[in-house]
Amino acid sequence: MKNFTFYNPVKIIFGKGTIEKIGAEAAVHGKTALLVYGKGSIKKNGVYAAVTQSLKASGLAFVEHEGVKSNPVLAHTREGIKKARENKCDLVIAAGGGSVIDESKAIAAGFKYSGDVWDFFSGKTAIKDAMPLLTVLTIPATGSEMNCGFVITNEETSQKFNAASPCSFPKVSIMDPLVTITLPKTQTANGAVDALAHIVEGYFTTKDKDAAITDELVHAIARSVIAGTDRILANPEDYNARASMMWSATLALNGLQALGYGGGSFINHAIEHSLSALYDIAHGAGLAIVMPAWFKYDLKISGPERLAKFGRSVFGVAAASDKEAAERTIASFEKWFSKIGAPLKLSEVKIPAADIPKIAENAMGLITKWGIDCDRTSVEDILRKAV
Amino acid sequence: MKNFTFYNPVKIIFGKGTIEKIGAEAAVHGKTALLVYGKGSIKKNGVYAAVTQSLKASGLAFVEHEGVKSNPVLAHTREGIKKARENKCDLVIAAGGGSVIDESKAIAAGFKYSGDVWDFFSGKTAIKDAMPLLTVLTIPATGSEMNCGFVITNEETSQKFNAASPCSFPKVSIMDPLVTITLPKTQTANGAVDALAHIVEGYFTTKDKDAAITDELVHAIARSVIAGTDRILANPEDYNARASMMWSATLALNGLQALGYGGGSFINHAIEHSLSALYDIAHGAGLAIVMPAWFKYDLKISGPERLAKFGRSVFGVAAASDKEAAERTIASFEKWFSKIGAPLKLSEVKIPAADIPKIAENAMGLITKWGIDCDRTSVEDILRKAV
Repeated sequence: MKNFTFYNPVKIIFGKGTIEKIGAEAAVHGKTALLVYGKGSIKKNGVYAAVTQSLKASGLAFVEHEGVKSNPVLAHTREGIKKARENKCDLVIAAGGGSVIDESKAIAAGFKYSGDVWDFFSGKTAIKDAMPLLTVLTIPATGSEMNCGFVITNEETSQKFNAASPCSFPKVSIMDPLVTITLPKTQTANGAVDALAHIVEGYFTTKDKDAAITDELVHAIARSVIAGTDRILANPEDYNARASMMWSATLALNGLQALGYGGGSFINHAIEHSLSALYDIAHGAGLAIVMPAWFKYDLKISGPERLAKFGRSVFGVAAASDKEAAERTIASFEKWFSKIGAPLKLSEVKIPAADIPKIAENAMGLITKWGIDCDRTSVEDILRKAV
Repeated sequence: MKNFTFYNPVKIIFGKGTIEKIGAEAAVHGKTALLVYGKGSIKKNGVYAAVTQSLKASGLAFVEHEGVKSNPVLAHTREGIKKARENKCDLVIAAGGGSVIDESKAIAAGFKYSGDVWDFFSGKTAIKDAMPLLTVLTIPATGSEMNCGFVITNEETSQKFNAASPCSFPKVSIMDPLVTITLPKTQTANGAVDALAHIVEGYFTTKDKDAAITDELVHAIARSVIAGTDRILANPEDYNARASMMWSATLALNGLQALGYGGGSFINHAIEHSLSALYDIAHGAGLAIVMPAWFKYDLKISGPERLAKFGRSVFGVAAASDKEAAERTIASFEKWFSKIGAPLKLSEVKIPAADIPKIAENAMGLITKWGIDCDRTSVEDILRKAV
């Protein structure tokens, strides 16, 4: 078990009817909010009304910054910073899914920085300050509501890059599972794949295979994501399943899921970011394509031990030999992704196999930035397993 | 799944050789520390030398407050407050196990309060402020290093009572598993029982039996505590087992273990506190006596469902019927407690059965304070199952 530091000061307010608390919580941190949201789904599911009413009741002014795309982009982030400055905002409220929260984190940090916000992503500078950020989560998936990382796509360079800073933890995140009940099946599935990917990355690339408590937590969260999603797809109005899934997705990337692993690589994310940057597909869909392909590739390099352990604990794989158990684990992932309607092949999201070299070239950007030991040929090999 | 709020801002620095960081971390929060520790074990295991050297290197002054008892007492707490005031301390450093950390929390809060520190425990007043507290943990057991609760025994009234406040979260807790390698078998076992008890309490008294992710986490932590302890008892120098156990005990009471349960009762703790208050036995030993007795009592009231679920997941109980699975789960607890050398009967810690009415009377203090639905006759019934 490797050394680690864990610090996560996000206050989580979780449950039915909690969105109305946003005003009182926000009033602790500022007076004029930049209210960031997406393309209007929050106006259909009641979140917009609940948030704005609560802000008004607590005497907060707010300026709206709407239109955040899934795979949020740099230009819109810059607009948000400009709007926050023009309106002398002193806090940011994100109402939406991971994309909205990520762009909000970028705006909160960019607001306090005299240079261009992309500098945080290119590695030119570190984040030293940020406006206070509060979130109202509407889609369980990315875990951004309880961590300090975020991802923005530079649409000029097709780079989907990340940044992180302790300044970027939300002060408060409100999570009402009721608002997830109207999520379409595809978003539910993509969110589940994303959550699963977050715990898979560290688990399978750990530098220490003897961090028993963290392995147990990873298995627990994975089982819960899978069981919760199965219940939701059987009955979308199952509140407890929605709630368990929502909290599971948060736990899948709040730091706990990788403690003692000594840092692993986010290789599946590094490759997937290129798919969603180049083809604007959903992040979860891209991960469902990349993960089984990477498992098959990595099985020959890392051996079957971890895959076998995961499968036995999470999927109930009963094979006696590790080799067979590992293969059945990969098959279980594929079977489950198919069952929930996630794609497994590039062709299913209309990405031609001929583009693989171009995707691999793009992926080398993040692979290099993150210091992952994987060359371009290997990325091509991985992607060819998803043809 | 019930609504919840989760907030835990403790910074954890975990791993080999981390104690030397205490000085730099403490310097952020103050200049003159009250250094609280127990009866000298930290002078034998190198912790005292590492802490004091680090404090000096970072330019911190410190005043020593030694002699904290396991089951820390009010008189010594008051002395600590007096010493901190006389020496104009502005932070507290706890170096030890849960008792040392608990007394340190009481001192840190009592220092800022003009009345008597017992007022926090009697319920006369709430904690509104506290000195910053940093901890160096030496015994995995209570979880106090990453929560805001603490327990003190009033030796005049034989009341072992608790207090809690968001002000009482440690700023930083340093956890070096290396220092636990020299822990005697009894302390290892008592710590494991305590950790197990912390997750058991919420799980078996939950107001909502459909909080799937939290059930999964509880199973994960329980399995990890049991497996870690087994490894440690087989080989006390197994670093990874010590590390996994240390982090597991923290997770067993940092709040995560009960989210969505809607509050449960700490009935086993309420009864055990009377055993350790009246007879000064180790808290973990008392819990090993009370828990199986309470399971047997509660099985008839709550039914077998939760015990069966826990046993199937944690102990691998294979019984088909819930009733049989529940009984085997209780037997598994007893078998494991015996295996690690924890007592199961009052007689094993020399408490006479004739004292049961007196113990039950004492226990009603906490049971009433905590609003637990359990009368004196029931406490006597429970204790008679441990004769």
